[in-house]
Amino acid sequence: MKTMFQYNWLVREEWYRWCEDIPVEELLRVRTGGVGGILHTLFHIADVEWSWIRALQGKPDFQESFDGYRSLEKVRQLDASFRQEVVEFVQSWDESMETLPLYDMQNDGKFTGHSWGEIMRHVIAHEIHHIGQLSVWSRELGKKPVSANLIGKGLIKPKL
Amino acid sequence: MKTMFQYNWLVREEWYRWCEDIPVEELLRVRTGGVGGILHTLFHIADVEWSWIRALQGKPDFQESFDGYRSLEKVRQLDASFRQEVVEFVQSWDESMETLPLYDMQNDGKFTGHSWGEIMRHVIAHEIHHIGQLSVWSRELGKKPVSANLIGKGLIKPKL
Repeated sequence: MKTMFQYNWLVREEWYRWCEDIPVEELLRVRTGGVGGILHTLFHIADVEWSWIRALQGKPDFQESFDGYRSLEKVRQLDASFRQEVVEFVQSWDESMETLPLYDMQNDGKFTGHSWGEIMRHVIAHEIHHIGQLSVWSRELGKKPVSANLIGKGLIKPKL
Repeated sequence: MKTMFQYNWLVREEWYRWCEDIPVEELLRVRTGGVGGILHTLFHIADVEWSWIRALQGKPDFQESFDGYRSLEKVRQLDASFRQEVVEFVQSWDESMETLPLYDMQNDGKFTGHSWGEIMRHVIAHEIHHIGQLSVWSRELGKKPVSANLIGKGLIKPKL
């Protein structure tokens, strides 16, 4: 669990650095699939991660749209402003939290319960999925995408 | 760990079903990004998952190319032929395996060690990343992609 979050943060940081070499009009260009753009995707990843972590803590989530964050610097700053709370929550994770319920109102007005463990894994998969979309758009731009490799980052050291 | 593999298998099965409604020439068409095509991606996901699980068991891995598997039925059959061994390995997973080493020869001929825990998470992230690419190509085809949601699949039941 913690390893996957660390992996996502490392890869996300690499994508922010990748963005530094791309003209802002390309970062903002509307593209096919996902939420429809490179910078919008990074905004969406940070937004969704923080919003779920906030929901698990019973706190209000992030409600703003991408319209106010249409530059690399603004998205990075927003992400950084969320990060400490997310890191603390992830670091505090233990097995006893896996099946705690979060109640969620569905479109039909009925309540459904999700386990916290499922939500945390949903957040992990959500980011990796959207990063996969960035990799296609990167190739469309003629640029090599950030590696998605999880091995080789020293996340879990082997006992040699 | 086990939850993420189950999620991947469920989503992969949904993508196989999604493929049933797509002409084979679209499934085989060379596309930008990833391994360059829809069916090739599904082949690659099954190949990589099984190959790593084989490597962890010290068994020979899968060496064939996509050339021999250029139909939905053939990829599904190949995947099915791998699945039981993968499921058994994932089901047998326990904490004591996390830091076991797997030695891997690098391009420079030096050996490096990866932990088993890192490799298993690499396999998980590898699939989700490639499925993200399918979602873009799906929209390019004018088709709704399979949902990447992990919540709502009953993978970890909440204690209500």
